[in-house]
Amino acid sequence: MALVKLIEYAEASPEVRSVYDDIMKTRGVDWINNFWKALAHDPRELRRVWANVKQVMAPGALDPLVKEMIYVAVSATNGCEYCTYSHTAAARKKGMTEPMFMELMAVVGLANETNRLANGLRPEVDPQFR
Amino acid sequence: MALVKLIEYAEASPEVRSVYDDIMKTRGVDWINNFWKALAHDPRELRRVWANVKQVMAPGALDPLVKEMIYVAVSATNGCEYCTYSHTAAARKKGMTEPMFMELMAVVGLANETNRLANGLRPEVDPQFR
Amino acid sequence: MALVKLIEYAEASPEVRSVYDDIMKTRGVDWINNFWKALAHDPRELRRVWANVKQVMAPGALDPLVKEMIYVAVSATNGCEYCTYSHTAAARKKGMTEPMFMELMAVVGLANETNRLANGLRPEVDPQFR
Amino acid sequence: MALVKLIEYAEASPEVRSVYDDIMKTRGVDWINNFWKALAHDPRELRRVWANVKQVMAPGALDPLVKEMIYVAVSATNGCEYCTYSHTAAARKKGMTEPMFMELMAVVGLANETNRLANGLRPEVDPQFR
Amino acid sequence: MALVKLIEYAEASPEVRSVYDDIMKTRGVDWINNFWKALAHDPRELRRVWANVKQVMAPGALDPLVKEMIYVAVSATNGCEYCTYSHTAAARKKGMTEPMFMELMAVVGLANETNRLANGLRPEVDPQFR
Amino acid sequence: MALVKLIEYAEASPEVRSVYDDIMKTRGVDWINNFWKALAHDPRELRRVWANVKQVMAPGALDPLVKEMIYVAVSATNGCEYCTYSHTAAARKKGMTEPMFMELMAVVGLANETNRLANGLRPEVDPQFR
Repeated sequence: MALVKLIEYAEASPEVRSVYDDIMKTRGVDWINNFWKALAHDPRELRRVWANVKQVMAPGALDPLVKEMIYVAVSATNGCEYCTYSHTAAARKKGMTEPMFMELMAVVGLANETNRLANGLRPEVDPQFR
Repeated sequence: MALVKLIEYAEASPEVRSVYDDIMKTRGVDWINNFWKALAHDPRELRRVWANVKQVMAPGALDPLVKEMIYVAVSATNGCEYCTYSHTAAARKKGMTEPMFMELMAVVGLANETNRLANGLRPEVDPQFR
Repeated sequence: MALVKLIEYAEASPEVRSVYDDIMKTRGVDWINNFWKALAHDPRELRRVWANVKQVMAPGALDPLVKEMIYVAVSATNGCEYCTYSHTAAARKKGMTEPMFMELMAVVGLANETNRLANGLRPEVDPQFR
Repeated sequence: MALVKLIEYAEASPEVRSVYDDIMKTRGVDWINNFWKALAHDPRELRRVWANVKQVMAPGALDPLVKEMIYVAVSATNGCEYCTYSHTAAARKKGMTEPMFMELMAVVGLANETNRLANGLRPEVDPQFR
Repeated sequence: MALVKLIEYAEASPEVRSVYDDIMKTRGVDWINNFWKALAHDPRELRRVWANVKQVMAPGALDPLVKEMIYVAVSATNGCEYCTYSHTAAARKKGMTEPMFMELMAVVGLANETNRLANGLRPEVDPQFR
Repeated sequence: MALVKLIEYAEASPEVRSVYDDIMKTRGVDWINNFWKALAHDPRELRRVWANVKQVMAPGALDPLVKEMIYVAVSATNGCEYCTYSHTAAARKKGMTEPMFMELMAVVGLANETNRLANGLRPEVDPQFR
């Protein structure tokens, strides 16, 4: 259960609806997921976060699918359940196959392992890397 | 300063040297970075971790550069200084440009933001995502 | 389901009951939440942690509500489900309104974003900040 | 050493300078800290992150000093060195005294402790908290 | 619900079955837990991770029970629900008593508290420790 | 550089000195490490944290060396530089050999890897583990 009441489209203010409409149009979907319905308690925050997601996740120097998989990598590392489910779904919609997902997880797992080996053994950063 | 003495090539056992040689050959470099020199205190662990890195980072369903950028994403999320420097260097060697690095960081930053908004507001995972 | 059996008041030892009584009296409530019932498996640990919470969360240089919101900020950052629910409830009881909660989450989200931008881009700490 | 070259004011493009000017004006300072100089490699990202910081950290339902201390709490929890130095400096400028800082750290430390006790013992979230 | 379909023994390929058989034989159990059934989507990844677990968790310089409790400590720190349940069960099977589990959690909680005090107050590492 | 001035013994108040004396006596050392000198800015906090460390790290159901190694495991996982150096030093003083340290790190690294595999693949917790 969410810590704030979810704001459904039917009960949303015009300001919130305009963001909801933009989310659905941009993503080509006809529903709003719970994350946005929770943020809608503060319409300015809803607008701010959506503007960020829209700008950062738009086509740029990186492929859209690559960006979505990076999102999944961070979410799995942080143990964010909601984010892992939602961004894995998004990555699949953008073309992530099962073998790609498994390989993504393999890299994420390995990076988390070696991150701790480096944090524990504390080798100095080699001058070649700086 | 590392928490264990770094094992240089000249003083390494034949077992350690054979891993060092494979690292240099596989990566096409003529030096060993400090991470491996620290791990070399336990030759079996050195061999195990290198075997994992070699297998997981080899060509597969994902592009090698994409995998290296995912490594950077996890390392920045975990705040691992050594890993961030070394894998950013590796990603650049594989073709990551400055705009790609900046965009990678933008996605990593955003994902960490929304991960915490989801963790704090706790919306339920939408059934569509499961 | 908890990993240890929860110790209910009716079955608790006198030592555990005296802590339970102090928790209820200090907080002005008539029930014990599950966190303490789990800790009660080790009465000394129950006493230690409650003594810490009581001392640290008592009035001091910071306002009690501010302290509770800092608790929520840390819990959302760590992704601790139990802690997010319980300390958000506590903060509301101490006066946190819906707009305050939304703004708190906005700061928490933003801080997590810029933390990773700093961890990834690794600018040196400005001498003015030291 | 930063992973990207820092963009100084003198060499910055007009687009970057306009953000730098706004940062200095908004904060009433006459210098730009390294975080922004690193972000400036991607002017749109510089603009985006500054716009977020400006909006989220502006006066709202929470006191500006409280918000800055929440920023410090998250940064200490994440172990972000740069962020801890810079936001502690900012909090002091906004009025955080030494006793307030010590008490802030006490709450941050305690929250991290109990977060892990809850994560390890896994008591169910009490229905009263939902 | 898992993000990939769990592969049951009956439907598994010979390659997956050989790993499942080795897991059951090594652990002296007659069932496979869900973690491995999810990994089985990528038989090479299943084989790799199991080989790591088998090697690292085998008898060595540390007592097997100590290693299992370290696993629990890391899992509670990371907030990994699945890992906390599964490795706590494994530690109990290897002899962890209730008082040992409670004391383990006490150390984990305390370490997380002082980690953040150090991260926030940022005392320099004493030369004696290097 | 620490974010608060370190309080040396010579300039410490009697209250602070009594804690410093107890730390040196309990540990059988003749110097105080920087962590405590930073905490000493708030004598009550110094007393509280030391009382916790003293109680939790005292002999109990777990071996003192095991507890110190768990401390190191948590510190490496969190990437706390100060804590990793200080508790590794403490563990060595209590008898941790080089092979034990390397094996400790191997378990810590592996646990962080599988934690993220579980967080990303999200297999349901097996009923046998609950």
